[in-house]
Amino acid sequence: LRCLTGDDRSLLSCLGLGTWVTFGSQISDEMAESVMTVAYDSGVNLFDTAEVYASGRYSTDCLAETERGLSRKHIIEGLRGSLSRLQLDYVDIVFANRTDVNAPMEEIVRAMTFVIEQGMAMYWGTSRWNVVEIMEAYSIARQFNLIPPVCEQAEYHYFQRDKVELHLPELYHKIGVGAMTWSPLACGLLTGKYNEGVPESSRAAMKGYAWLKERLCSDEGKKQLSKIKELHLLADRLNCTAAQLAIAWCLRSEGVSSVLLGVSNTEQLLENLGSVRVLSQLTPPLIAEMDALLGNKPRNVKKEARR
Amino acid sequence: LRCLTGDDRSLLSCLGLGTWVTFGSQISDEMAESVMTVAYDSGVNLFDTAEVYASGRYSTDCLAETERGLSRKHIIEGLRGSLSRLQLDYVDIVFANRTDVNAPMEEIVRAMTFVIEQGMAMYWGTSRWNVVEIMEAYSIARQFNLIPPVCEQAEYHYFQRDKVELHLPELYHKIGVGAMTWSPLACGLLTGKYNEGVPESSRAAMKGYAWLKERLCSDEGKKQLSKIKELHLLADRLNCTAAQLAIAWCLRSEGVSSVLLGVSNTEQLLENLGSVRVLSQLTPPLIAEMDALLGNKPRNVKKEARR
Amino acid sequence: LRCLTGDDRSLLSCLGLGTWVTFGSQISDEMAESVMTVAYDSGVNLFDTAEVYASGRYSTDCLAETERGLSRKHIIEGLRGSLSRLQLDYVDIVFANRTDVNAPMEEIVRAMTFVIEQGMAMYWGTSRWNVVEIMEAYSIARQFNLIPPVCEQAEYHYFQRDKVELHLPELYHKIGVGAMTWSPLACGLLTGKYNEGVPESSRAAMKGYAWLKERLCSDEGKKQLSKIKELHLLADRLNCTAAQLAIAWCLRSEGVSSVLLGVSNTEQLLENLGSVRVLSQLTPPLIAEMDALLGNKPRNVKKEARR
Amino acid sequence: LRCLTGDDRSLLSCLGLGTWVTFGSQISDEMAESVMTVAYDSGVNLFDTAEVYASGRYSTDCLAETERGLSRKHIIEGLRGSLSRLQLDYVDIVFANRTDVNAPMEEIVRAMTFVIEQGMAMYWGTSRWNVVEIMEAYSIARQFNLIPPVCEQAEYHYFQRDKVELHLPELYHKIGVGAMTWSPLACGLLTGKYNEGVPESSRAAMKGYAWLKERLCSDEGKKQLSKIKELHLLADRLNCTAAQLAIAWCLRSEGVSSVLLGVSNTEQLLENLGSVRVLSQLTPPLIAEMDALLGNKPRNVKKEARR
Repeated sequence: LRCLTGDDRSLLSCLGLGTWVTFGSQISDEMAESVMTVAYDSGVNLFDTAEVYASGRYSTDCLAETERGLSRKHIIEGLRGSLSRLQLDYVDIVFANRTDVNAPMEEIVRAMTFVIEQGMAMYWGTSRWNVVEIMEAYSIARQFNLIPPVCEQAEYHYFQRDKVELHLPELYHKIGVGAMTWSPLACGLLTGKYNEGVPESSRAAMKGYAWLKERLCSDEGKKQLSKIKELHLLADRLNCTAAQLAIAWCLRSEGVSSVLLGVSNTEQLLENLGSVRVLSQLTPPLIAEMDALLGNKPRNVKKEARR
Repeated sequence: LRCLTGDDRSLLSCLGLGTWVTFGSQISDEMAESVMTVAYDSGVNLFDTAEVYASGRYSTDCLAETERGLSRKHIIEGLRGSLSRLQLDYVDIVFANRTDVNAPMEEIVRAMTFVIEQGMAMYWGTSRWNVVEIMEAYSIARQFNLIPPVCEQAEYHYFQRDKVELHLPELYHKIGVGAMTWSPLACGLLTGKYNEGVPESSRAAMKGYAWLKERLCSDEGKKQLSKIKELHLLADRLNCTAAQLAIAWCLRSEGVSSVLLGVSNTEQLLENLGSVRVLSQLTPPLIAEMDALLGNKPRNVKKEARR
Repeated sequence: LRCLTGDDRSLLSCLGLGTWVTFGSQISDEMAESVMTVAYDSGVNLFDTAEVYASGRYSTDCLAETERGLSRKHIIEGLRGSLSRLQLDYVDIVFANRTDVNAPMEEIVRAMTFVIEQGMAMYWGTSRWNVVEIMEAYSIARQFNLIPPVCEQAEYHYFQRDKVELHLPELYHKIGVGAMTWSPLACGLLTGKYNEGVPESSRAAMKGYAWLKERLCSDEGKKQLSKIKELHLLADRLNCTAAQLAIAWCLRSEGVSSVLLGVSNTEQLLENLGSVRVLSQLTPPLIAEMDALLGNKPRNVKKEARR
Repeated sequence: LRCLTGDDRSLLSCLGLGTWVTFGSQISDEMAESVMTVAYDSGVNLFDTAEVYASGRYSTDCLAETERGLSRKHIIEGLRGSLSRLQLDYVDIVFANRTDVNAPMEEIVRAMTFVIEQGMAMYWGTSRWNVVEIMEAYSIARQFNLIPPVCEQAEYHYFQRDKVELHLPELYHKIGVGAMTWSPLACGLLTGKYNEGVPESSRAAMKGYAWLKERLCSDEGKKQLSKIKELHLLADRLNCTAAQLAIAWCLRSEGVSSVLLGVSNTEQLLENLGSVRVLSQLTPPLIAEMDALLGNKPRNVKKEARR
C-alpha cells in the first residue's frame, strides 16, 4: 500500500518524486526534507509518500501476507496509518501492491472502493500488477458496481519496455487505466555510474543489492553497459546528461502520464528535472536511432497481423 | 463547478440571481451584498453563488483543464472550497461546467453521486452541456446505478431558442431533466441599451467584450437591433419595460423552471423582478405576435412529420 | 414526513401513540407530556412523534408541495429538523406522506435510502399510499438496488376495512410490507360519543371538522350510528367499553402489526390500553357476529374464484 | 451478535479465546482479565469478546426475538453497544447468531453491509447457521450487491464432525466462507474430566447443564466416554494431555482457520495453547488411527460416487 498526494493545483506534474527506495535507508531525514522542498518549489506536485514521513519506522523487510481474508483490514488500517503519519485527510491515489494480491480480488476492489467512498482517497491504482490482474480488478469492479483502478505503477526504462509500451497502452484504450512509471534510471545503471565497474559508494555495492552487482557482471549486463556508453555519447550530442536523456525518453512514451524519480540529493533532483527541456529534442528520427541502438523495441504482433 | 443554494422554504422561486458575470469584476462588494439582500427580501431564494462570496479572490482567467483523471479531485475539492467560502454544510444543486467534460463521463457522474451521498449537495445539474452529453450522463447513471442530473443551465433569450424550446423539452419528457436559463437579456442587448449604438459605460465597450461589440455591428446584429426596437414598442403597449417583457417571455416557456437574472444594482433587480406581473399578459395571441416578429420559432420536425 | 421511534427494548408494542391529531391543537403541552409518560410506563414504546415536541410551532396548514424536484431536499431537511427537535440521533421508522408523492418515485426511494444509509433512520414506511404506489416504490427499490419500505400507515376501523383486510395482506405476502393502522375509533365516532347527536365539546363541532358533522348527518352516517349502537350492546355483553372493543377488533386482524391510538388525556389512554385484555374474547364466532352486524366484510374475489 | 477483534498484527492467530461461556458466570472478572493478558502475551490475538467486558451486566437469559422487522435495529444497536462497552472504533468480524435468522435474510445482509460500510466492522460472519442459511445469505449478497459473510462459527470436536469436515469445506470452495470452530473439548468432556463420573465442581453438575449430565449417562454417552479413555492413552503415548490432543486434532482439519478456546484460568489456557506443539505429531497414520477409534469419519458420498 503506497499513497500518492498532489496539492491544490489541479494538474499533476509529469515528473514526480518516488521516495520508497532512497529515503529512509540511504539518505538522512534532513536531506529528504530538503529534496522535497526543492522538488515542490520546482513545480513537482506528485509525491509517492507512503514511507517518507515514516522513515523512523521504515523497514526494508518485505511483509509477505499469505493469509486469506485480511486484505480489507490491511488496506483500510494501512491507509489510515499513512494518513495519520502524513497528517492528511486524504491522498490522491492509493496503490495496492502485488503483495495484496493474495486476498480475493473482490475484497481488494471492495476495500479500495470503501476508502474512496469514505473520502480517504480520490482514486486507486495498482503497483506492479500484470495486465491480467488489472483486467480482473476492472471486471470485478464492473460486476459489483465498484470503482475501477485508474493507473498502474510500472518499472520503465531502456531495458524494461514491453509492459509500458505494449501491454498497458492496450489496457489504457480498453479500460482507461494509465501508466505511472518508476526506476527511469534502472537503479542508477543508466547514469553511467557503472560504466567503469561498481563504485564502492554505489547501490550495487550495498548489502541487499547483490543481485544488482551480479546482473551487471552477467553477459546480458555487459551488453547493456556497452549500449549505455553509446547512449552517453548521444546525450553529449544533445548537450544533456545521460540521466536527463533516459528520463526524457520515458516521458516521450505516449502511454506514460508521470515518471517517478528516485534521488538522493537536491543536485540530482535538479539535474533530473532538466529532462523536461530535453523532451522537445526527441524527434522521431532520434527516437528511431535510439530504438535501433537499443534493439528491443516491442513489436505489436496483433497490429502487424492486421496490416 | 457552480453551486446553487435555496433556503428552508421548500419551493425555489422562478426567478434566481446569477452572479458569476456582474459580481466580482463589474460591481463592488457592497453593491453585491445589497443586491442579494433586496433579492432575498423580494422572495428570491435561488442564488447561483460559486464566486459570489469569493469575489475578493475572483479570477477572470478561464481555467482550462485538459488533463484526464483529475475530474473527481476537481469536483470534490472545488465543492468543498465553495462550501467553506459560503459557510454552508451543503448546497441545493451543484453544476458541472463544460470544462469538466474532458474527464471520462463515468468519473464525473461518480463524483457527483459521491458529493450527494456525502451530503454536500442535494442534486446535481449540468451547465452548458449539449443534449448528447446530458443523455450520456443519464445513461452512465443508469448503467452504474448512480444519481442522474436534474437540470441543465442553458442560455435562453429571444435570439437563442432552439435548445430550450426544442431539445431540452424532449429530454425533460424522456428523463426528467429540467431547464434553468440564464442571460434572459442577452448581455443587456434586449434592454434597448444598444439601440442607438454602444454607450461608453456598457459591457460591449469593456475590454474582453470585443466579440459583443463586433456582433452588434454585424448584419445579423443590425437585424436583431431592429427587432429589439419593435419589441420595445410592444413593451410600451403592455406598460412594462423591454427587460421585463424579455424576462416574462422566458418564464412563459413550458420547459423553464427558473430564470437566472444578472443585475448590477438594486434598481435593475427590482425592475427585473417586475417581469412576474407581466407574465399574465402574455396571452397566446401576443406570443404568436412576438413569434412572428422574431421569425425564429423552432420547428419540431419530428412532431410535424407525425401529423 | 412523520417519524416513529421505539426505545432500546427490541420489540415494538402492538399499541402505539399517534399524536398528530390531538396534540398541538386540542390538548395542552402538560397533558401531552403526561399522556406520553403514562403510555411509556404502561409498556407502550411506539410513538408517532413528528409534531409532538414541536407543538409550539405546530401548524394545521396542510403544506401542499406540488413542485417537482424538491422531494429529496424536503425529506432530508424535514427529518434533520425532526431529529433536532426530538433531540435524537435517529428514529426507528420515517414515513413518507401522500403529499410527497408528487416528486418522482425514484427520488423518494433514493432519499429514504439515503437517510437510512446515513444512520438517521432504521427503516422507512409509507403513510396513506395506495397499493399501486407502494408496489411502485418496491419496484423502484428493486430496480436501483435501494431499500424498500417496511410498512404502510393506513386508516382502519369498522367502516374502513378494504385496504387493511384485503389489499395490504396481499402486499405483505408478496413483498413483506406490514400494516400499522390509525384512527381505530374513526375520530371518536365508535366510542358512541355521537350516538345522541353532536356534543358541543366534540371534534365534530370544531372548526375544520365540518365534513365530520356532515357525514354524521348523512343517510350513510345514520346507518353507521345505528350499527355503533348495536356494537355498544355487544361491548356491554363483553364487559368492556365500545372503544376497547373497537381497538381489540383492529388488533385481531392478521395483517396488523400495530394500532396507533389518538387520545386527549390519560384516562382515555388507560381505557384504550385495556383493549389488549379484550382481544382474547374475540373468538371466531364473535368475529363472525360482528361481521354480520357490520355487513361490510371485504370479499377476496380472486381467492373465491380459485375455489 | 458477537464480535471478534484482532490487533494491529495482520495475521489472526490460529487459536483464539472464546469467552461467552466461562466468562461472566463461572469465573471472576480478575481471572478473566488475567486469562486475557496471558493469552495476548502468548501470541493469541483473536478474542470473541461480546460479553467479555460487559460481564457485570451479563445475562444468561437467552433473548429470543421472534418479531419480524427488528433485525436491522437489533444488529446496529447491538454492535454500537458492544463497541461502546469495548471502547473500540470497530471490530474485525461481527457475527450474526441463529436467533437473528427470524428476520428476513435481506434485512440481515443489508444491516451487516451497513455496519461494514460505516466502518464499525471489517467483516461479518455467521454463528451456528446451517449451510442452506449461509448459502441464502451469500445469494442475497450477490443479488443486491451486498457484502457476503466470510466465515461461520461452528461447534467442532471428536463427536461433532459432519458440518466442519463435510459441509463447510464445500461452501469454502464454492463461496469462500471459512470455518472458525468452538467447543474443541465438548464442554470439558474430552479432557477426561467425566471419565469417572460427574465431579461436583464440573459444569455438568451446574444448574442449567442438566442436559449435559443426562447426555453423559445415556448409552451414547457411555460409548463416547470409553472412546475418550482410549484417546487419553493415545495422548499419553504422544506425551501430551487429552485436551491438547483434542485441540490439535481440530487444528489439523483443512477447513479450520481458527479454534476458539474456552478456559476458566490461566493454567488451563497455557495447557491448551500447548496443543500447537502437538500438531506436528498428527501424522496421517495417527489421524487414521484416531478415525478408526472414533468410527465417525464423515463420508463424502458425492465424491465417492464420482470415483
